[in-house]
Amino acid sequence: MRDINQFTVTQAVKDSFKTEPGSRFEQLLHGFIDHLHDFTREHSLTHEEWMGVLNFLYDCGQISTPERHEFILLSDVIGFSALVDMINTKGGATEGSNLGPFYLDNAPEKKLGADLADDRDGVSVLVFGKVTDSLHKPLAGAVVDTWQADGSGTYPIQEQDQGQDKYDLRGKFTCDDQGRYYYTTVLPKPYTVPYDGPVGDLLRAGNRHAWRTAHLHYIIRHPHMSAITTEIFFENTDYIDQDAVFGVRKSLIAKVRPLKGLDELGFELEKTPDAMCEFDFVLAPEG
Amino acid sequence: MRDINQFTVTQAVKDSFKTEPGSRFEQLLHGFIDHLHDFTREHSLTHEEWMGVLNFLYDCGQISTPERHEFILLSDVIGFSALVDMINTKGGATEGSNLGPFYLDNAPEKKLGADLADDRDGVSVLVFGKVTDSLHKPLAGAVVDTWQADGSGTYPIQEQDQGQDKYDLRGKFTCDDQGRYYYTTVLPKPYTVPYDGPVGDLLRAGNRHAWRTAHLHYIIRHPHMSAITTEIFFENTDYIDQDAVFGVRKSLIAKVRPLKGLDELGFELEKTPDAMCEFDFVLAPEG
Repeated sequence: MRDINQFTVTQAVKDSFKTEPGSRFEQLLHGFIDHLHDFTREHSLTHEEWMGVLNFLYDCGQISTPERHEFILLSDVIGFSALVDMINTKGGATEGSNLGPFYLDNAPEKKLGADLADDRDGVSVLVFGKVTDSLHKPLAGAVVDTWQADGSGTYPIQEQDQGQDKYDLRGKFTCDDQGRYYYTTVLPKPYTVPYDGPVGDLLRAGNRHAWRTAHLHYIIRHPHMSAITTEIFFENTDYIDQDAVFGVRKSLIAKVRPLKGLDELGFELEKTPDAMCEFDFVLAPEG
Repeated sequence: MRDINQFTVTQAVKDSFKTEPGSRFEQLLHGFIDHLHDFTREHSLTHEEWMGVLNFLYDCGQISTPERHEFILLSDVIGFSALVDMINTKGGATEGSNLGPFYLDNAPEKKLGADLADDRDGVSVLVFGKVTDSLHKPLAGAVVDTWQADGSGTYPIQEQDQGQDKYDLRGKFTCDDQGRYYYTTVLPKPYTVPYDGPVGDLLRAGNRHAWRTAHLHYIIRHPHMSAITTEIFFENTDYIDQDAVFGVRKSLIAKVRPLKGLDELGFELEKTPDAMCEFDFVLAPEG
């Protein structure tokens, strides 16, 4: 009969799953089992530690709701999300970054030049740039889908009970013939990820803070190109080197500067901003 | 500023946790992050696969209750529990095996020779043996805490709504001066682990069954020795080579045989059994 010991158990577990040889499911399952078992052996995990891990996952499950996915938050703070974003960035395209928990897929369509801020407090900024392919060819008709926190670090969707509209501070812009997008908004502020649950306990255990550096969220789509999900960050702002979810990449940092050369751009703007910030997105072909 | 790419992110995540250098927490945290990130890179995990993993954990959390810990079940079916049991078996001691979900720490104390079966259907068996140290010295006063399924594969605790007493088919026996324990009970039958949740989906995806081979559960304690949690299995029974939770070890298999030499043992039994099954437990010193 089969004899199982701490070395043979790994193969026995893999053999117990009758997967299609060479299938993606087999690769991922075997790879995960190998790593989990190696980790367990390398550190001679005790029963108390093992139970601690399982109870941590249990607690993450108990606090999760359709509106709060504690496992995504966990993935974020241990760089798992960031790693998947980076691995899946296509050559030549703008680097990917966190989707985050506040995306809505039915944001309102807005005209180029519109203002998203609705008189909210803070620095008003013109955000503009081009969407191109990797050979700098403008992608007319590309859709720039953006959402963001306000000048105090809060998403309107988080304050619906205080009368805020969840569709505020978000919008879909269609690029013009030169592949350009432009709109004004309020410069977002940093905010904390939720730290009242098990993931917060983990952060505290590691003497970490929960702050995300300020950012604008984007999904950029075009019919013949691979969509990208990413964020723009701002030079020299708080937590830029300590973002709690490891979303920052050097290539995603924009500079906010005083207005200069606004007239030459020829934009029709709903509101005159205080500052401007330029960022170009590059999409790679599909497939 | 810090630049993060798919290779540097791992160290950045480890550095973000300000752990005491060399602490157990640091070792486990760093080890886990290394393995998770290596797994992700080695298999170029896609966003869909990443989300699939996180939603699987979410679903495990949603079906879990204080009475049902889907993460322990997950740990069981991927051999994580078995591996921890084997790693923590002390040299010379009886091998450890699954605690399972049905243990109650306040089982009734029973006299040696008592019958646990209460006329339940099935094969009545005398279970007996010694508890010793690794030099065969009997451990008088050792406590044998046992619990089990009945002759149809069900724990009474699972059928309380049908009038069963959750303390049935369990008991604590104190070994005599020769370190002996003995009692009669019904031979347990195989049963399935719960397969109506996400772990059941995983088993089905891998064309696996959910059967545990028949077994008796034990925790053996003695004041000066390390307690062991283990199980006894039976030679030539169903699923002995395919136990769903990888609990079976060669060293934990007992033979059920016809009554022979019962008189010489000199046991005072409440009930005359159909068969007998001998198993000796060995404890290692504490620490």
